[in-house]
Amino acid sequence: MMSKLKWGMIGGGEGSQIGPAHRMGAQADGLFELAAGALDHRPEVGRDYAQRLGVAADRAYGDWQEMLAGEKDRDDRVDLVTVATPNATHFEITRAFLQAGFNVLCEKPMTMTVQEGEDIVRLAEATGKVCAVNYCYSAYPMVRQARAMVCAGEIGKVRLVVTSFSHGHHGDATDADNPRVRWRYDPEMAGVSGQFADCGIHALHMASFICDDQVEKLSADFASTIPSRELEDDAMVNFRMCGGTVGRLWTSSVAIGRQHGFDIQIFGETGGLRWASEQPNQLIYTPLGGRTQIIEKGEAGLSEDAQRMSRVAIAHPEGFPLAVANIYVDLAAAIRGEVRDGLPTPADGARSMAAVYAAVESAGKGGAWVEARPGMFR
Amino acid sequence: MMSKLKWGMIGGGEGSQIGPAHRMGAQADGLFELAAGALDHRPEVGRDYAQRLGVAADRAYGDWQEMLAGEKDRDDRVDLVTVATPNATHFEITRAFLQAGFNVLCEKPMTMTVQEGEDIVRLAEATGKVCAVNYCYSAYPMVRQARAMVCAGEIGKVRLVVTSFSHGHHGDATDADNPRVRWRYDPEMAGVSGQFADCGIHALHMASFICDDQVEKLSADFASTIPSRELEDDAMVNFRMCGGTVGRLWTSSVAIGRQHGFDIQIFGETGGLRWASEQPNQLIYTPLGGRTQIIEKGEAGLSEDAQRMSRVAIAHPEGFPLAVANIYVDLAAAIRGEVRDGLPTPADGARSMAAVYAAVESAGKGGAWVEARPGMFR
Amino acid sequence: MMSKLKWGMIGGGEGSQIGPAHRMGAQADGLFELAAGALDHRPEVGRDYAQRLGVAADRAYGDWQEMLAGEKDRDDRVDLVTVATPNATHFEITRAFLQAGFNVLCEKPMTMTVQEGEDIVRLAEATGKVCAVNYCYSAYPMVRQARAMVCAGEIGKVRLVVTSFSHGHHGDATDADNPRVRWRYDPEMAGVSGQFADCGIHALHMASFICDDQVEKLSADFASTIPSRELEDDAMVNFRMCGGTVGRLWTSSVAIGRQHGFDIQIFGETGGLRWASEQPNQLIYTPLGGRTQIIEKGEAGLSEDAQRMSRVAIAHPEGFPLAVANIYVDLAAAIRGEVRDGLPTPADGARSMAAVYAAVESAGKGGAWVEARPGMFR
Amino acid sequence: MMSKLKWGMIGGGEGSQIGPAHRMGAQADGLFELAAGALDHRPEVGRDYAQRLGVAADRAYGDWQEMLAGEKDRDDRVDLVTVATPNATHFEITRAFLQAGFNVLCEKPMTMTVQEGEDIVRLAEATGKVCAVNYCYSAYPMVRQARAMVCAGEIGKVRLVVTSFSHGHHGDATDADNPRVRWRYDPEMAGVSGQFADCGIHALHMASFICDDQVEKLSADFASTIPSRELEDDAMVNFRMCGGTVGRLWTSSVAIGRQHGFDIQIFGETGGLRWASEQPNQLIYTPLGGRTQIIEKGEAGLSEDAQRMSRVAIAHPEGFPLAVANIYVDLAAAIRGEVRDGLPTPADGARSMAAVYAAVESAGKGGAWVEARPGMFR
Repeated sequence: MMSKLKWGMIGGGEGSQIGPAHRMGAQADGLFELAAGALDHRPEVGRDYAQRLGVAADRAYGDWQEMLAGEKDRDDRVDLVTVATPNATHFEITRAFLQAGFNVLCEKPMTMTVQEGEDIVRLAEATGKVCAVNYCYSAYPMVRQARAMVCAGEIGKVRLVVTSFSHGHHGDATDADNPRVRWRYDPEMAGVSGQFADCGIHALHMASFICDDQVEKLSADFASTIPSRELEDDAMVNFRMCGGTVGRLWTSSVAIGRQHGFDIQIFGETGGLRWASEQPNQLIYTPLGGRTQIIEKGEAGLSEDAQRMSRVAIAHPEGFPLAVANIYVDLAAAIRGEVRDGLPTPADGARSMAAVYAAVESAGKGGAWVEARPGMFR
Repeated sequence: MMSKLKWGMIGGGEGSQIGPAHRMGAQADGLFELAAGALDHRPEVGRDYAQRLGVAADRAYGDWQEMLAGEKDRDDRVDLVTVATPNATHFEITRAFLQAGFNVLCEKPMTMTVQEGEDIVRLAEATGKVCAVNYCYSAYPMVRQARAMVCAGEIGKVRLVVTSFSHGHHGDATDADNPRVRWRYDPEMAGVSGQFADCGIHALHMASFICDDQVEKLSADFASTIPSRELEDDAMVNFRMCGGTVGRLWTSSVAIGRQHGFDIQIFGETGGLRWASEQPNQLIYTPLGGRTQIIEKGEAGLSEDAQRMSRVAIAHPEGFPLAVANIYVDLAAAIRGEVRDGLPTPADGARSMAAVYAAVESAGKGGAWVEARPGMFR
Repeated sequence: MMSKLKWGMIGGGEGSQIGPAHRMGAQADGLFELAAGALDHRPEVGRDYAQRLGVAADRAYGDWQEMLAGEKDRDDRVDLVTVATPNATHFEITRAFLQAGFNVLCEKPMTMTVQEGEDIVRLAEATGKVCAVNYCYSAYPMVRQARAMVCAGEIGKVRLVVTSFSHGHHGDATDADNPRVRWRYDPEMAGVSGQFADCGIHALHMASFICDDQVEKLSADFASTIPSRELEDDAMVNFRMCGGTVGRLWTSSVAIGRQHGFDIQIFGETGGLRWASEQPNQLIYTPLGGRTQIIEKGEAGLSEDAQRMSRVAIAHPEGFPLAVANIYVDLAAAIRGEVRDGLPTPADGARSMAAVYAAVESAGKGGAWVEARPGMFR
Repeated sequence: MMSKLKWGMIGGGEGSQIGPAHRMGAQADGLFELAAGALDHRPEVGRDYAQRLGVAADRAYGDWQEMLAGEKDRDDRVDLVTVATPNATHFEITRAFLQAGFNVLCEKPMTMTVQEGEDIVRLAEATGKVCAVNYCYSAYPMVRQARAMVCAGEIGKVRLVVTSFSHGHHGDATDADNPRVRWRYDPEMAGVSGQFADCGIHALHMASFICDDQVEKLSADFASTIPSRELEDDAMVNFRMCGGTVGRLWTSSVAIGRQHGFDIQIFGETGGLRWASEQPNQLIYTPLGGRTQIIEKGEAGLSEDAQRMSRVAIAHPEGFPLAVANIYVDLAAAIRGEVRDGLPTPADGARSMAAVYAAVESAGKGGAWVEARPGMFR
């Protein structure tokens, strides 16, 4: 009998958006059980909620420091800590738990600066612990299929990747002072970038992930279409990958009518691929000179990754929570010592931050091209 | 602290199609833990697999009789038994566990005859136990939204409901002898009906569920388009509901190119609705004289049911396993004594069987109209 | 130099729905010039409108009898007469012009009874004149491609054809007395059938056209979902073709939200095809065991018919008026003595009427199966 | 009686792509008759083809100079000349015919330089003749509806416009030497820009047209993804309109799988709009805080322009040739002295050329922002 792994969660309290996705992701396959938590910035609220979720009273903590202190010397300490707190705290929590020898899954953005990102990369290597960043879209089966096809050369050398992550949920100027919206455009809380750091880096990670290549340099145009905003709510980023691929990335939060407009197109010498997060179970493929084909999740002959990341039969839709669950499946395997290619790494987190800073610099310089790799990866 | 409910599963062994959906459904929200199982018709295989899933050795049973014997006198006996065995065994297992005072979730079809269906209805009433049939498509958030809109009169009196459940996965005549396909068209194993009993009854349940009405009579046309089949692989059923609504239902397993073509359209005096299982997160609504609108899962102002059955933010897709999970959420509530409208009942199971027999009779009589309700509900 | 053919039109006056489609159809390719017309049931209105359209005063007629008298002895008499008058007059006008030796394009339905239909078939044969019925949907390029693929055996023997032609434009009960709507459900004006005779026969023709087979027998279910209507506003027709193909046809005028929901699916032993009139430039094809492919109007390698019926480059959409124009292109060729397979014939018109009467009889007999071929074709 | 206008065509010979669209466009509504033509660069071929199209022998010319000489002194000279020759000749032909007092419709690009564009603007003004450029996509009914809605403030002040015109038809590197493809990337023949000048300017015109605003400045990134090409086959252009709107334009000819991917999204303070040329009969509209709606060509209550530019009933698709025909309808009206807002003007042609040169300059300067208006419009 394989016992469940013990899981601890920091943040993701009652009413949070991302909390339920992590809980479903960790529990859906019966691999993890929630054993500890510091779920809320209000200690009592967090303790209460943790217990309602089945955590024992002595492991329902008031904050992450208390949880670290409480867990680190237990024999049955948690096998994995998920960090789903406000962005500005990701770095110090992730660092602290890594230093104490825990495996960590950190929400994106992993850090607020490139330096911090590089620190986590080095620390994770030094400890040998599993450390991942939740670029969960990369765990959709058909994204894995796209990556497998690209890596197998099925569309030839990749010439061009075009991606967007745009929505309109921050498009109401009269709602711009709503605290749930405002902080995203306030440098005090969000850092140097608004929409690009929030959504754009998902698209940039996806481009790198599918193409198995890294962004080398970029040119950005930022706009605050709602003038009261200090940070951009719309951005266009052109980039070049190390292997020469041309990239185009548009991200917006004022695209009224787009709900969750995250999609990607990859064009190579001998074919094109298209995937959209709102219809995640299909991958559209056109071979050069041939007809467009619909590749269905669950069809025969898919890549090994695409197969194992799909759980129900062809054309039974699977969605976002199960993409998160696929991250947890691979985390469980990694914790048990198996090698699982594709888990988003601290290097991915550091690269995202380097791209954010490069884009801010480029936009400030009228679109000048700027090196986008962290210093440690140049 | 709310402890998890104990859950037992019969059938759904390794490699089965429906097993993973039940396990994800039961576990995703942390409400149930798998405590017992008789997962395979091969006793040792089932015992082994149950233990690999975390079931204690003494509750990893070889068959359902052993499980019934082992569980019925335990203080910590399972709170819910899921029956996911071959169709012909659903009745006896469900009956036996109900008689022993267990709560049961039975896969569809609940029974093989109308009489058996009526027996389960009466037995469930007599025991007062929770008994449900897994018409899980009815637990998609946007199906609930459709039902709420119809019941609130938002499209007026329903004139017409048009539904189909068609796929092409049995369309290969050269594969017709494949045992995984053949049994479905063999009266010895499948009973009186093939495709209609397999998929059509999902569509018929959906029509009844959304319209909050029952099928009164029907006229059917069956075809075995692959001649070697004794039972139909394509069927058209026209029906009338008790409230006068006209119904049209097409189901096929030879519709090559349709993957999981389950969809429904409801037309009332003042509007129309459209939903498709392959894009389950949208409901298409057209008010009389107005423009077609896209209602998104997670948007503001949805019905209470639609809201609570959605777990992640607007436009983050949710799929089939979470629809199954919604059934388990309501089962957990019902087991704890809460009232949850919408759980598919034994009466639904009995009505499906009556519709199957009526359709077979009608098709045999050249499309003659036949009463479709179980005797107990006329 | 090839001079233009002279064209005369009866009906299709100012404000009519179908008139502009015929004029664009006849003129788009510069093959016909409007030389004569009796365009309106109000003689002066028709004369005036014809002249505004460029018809000479002496050929701007007050009614069809006047036009017949005026044209029949001219040396430069019209090469083609289009009959686009109210349905009940199609037969006598078509007959009269055929008898006088004119070529005729008649709007559907060609006649009001089967007997009349058979009369036109015989008359057209006897005169040797070109006579066609405007089943113009059959002249979309991708419908021709579908027909060519079926006839070439690319989807194997056809098992099943499923078609619908449904809209919601007559769904407003409060508008049911509107004269433009009411006549369609009034037996005095519409004949024995409402929606099936209006739209259903287009779908039935399409099924026959693509499958290159004829309907042998059918079983129908009619409903007047707006109770004040004597004739059906919703119909389901199951049918069998002479070659054994199973057919399903749904037609409705109360399907609120469907705009012009004419589509067809053809399922054979080795593949499936799907086409929808609202996106007419693509044909969806799934080979057995393979992926669904999108066949684009204008792509390389299409059938000869599909190629010549497309006028602009791939993915530049073409629509309904150019489908009508394709009918005129073939009429011009036929008038000049070329053979053009695919022009809808008087036999098609007679078969439609036989299907209408068969459906009415079947619906009246509770869905009994009824022979659907005209006596002359049994 | 309104006689037809006489029409002459230069270029657009047998086998050309754009010729048939012009002929259908001019003839579909019976407004123009082809009276003269110089259709091919091979004089005899052109004369022969013109006569086969019904042009009298003495007006079937060998080249445009001959046509100008032949027509300019005729009493019945052509009312309109369409210039559909290779791009590099547009300027001199348009200039010559304007100078001789003809009305002209010129294919895009109107000229090869900004100076030439400004010359045509001044010349057209001086002569008072009708002169238009064939930005025919602006004549789709639902594009007019979008423009009307924007101008009426229905989406508030426009913040952002995002457009693309991408296809993959030049994506085959092994076909790059094909003469029909190669010239587009050869500065000798195509001028300073490849894909942006070919397709991008359609998208840029559309953005200006719908927003009723002009591009002020831009920043461009060009790529030749097939290395042998001197000119770009992929371009991204960020721009700002005079009124402050942010713009994003992507154009590509190597986007394998995109057929005719011309689409536009417009985002304002109180709503968003979306239109795609491959499904031109719908306009997608989302009011701020409301549901996405599908606006159908032909529905009640559309703008006057959208209504008159639609010719057949709701949901009967209309396509590219009828958009061209709408240009001709407005040209006929303008020639007869009516005012028709919306005809693409020489100023539009000059602005396109200024944008092309600005984009080339910006791309050459690493994305620097460059003024994009012709000098005469600054």
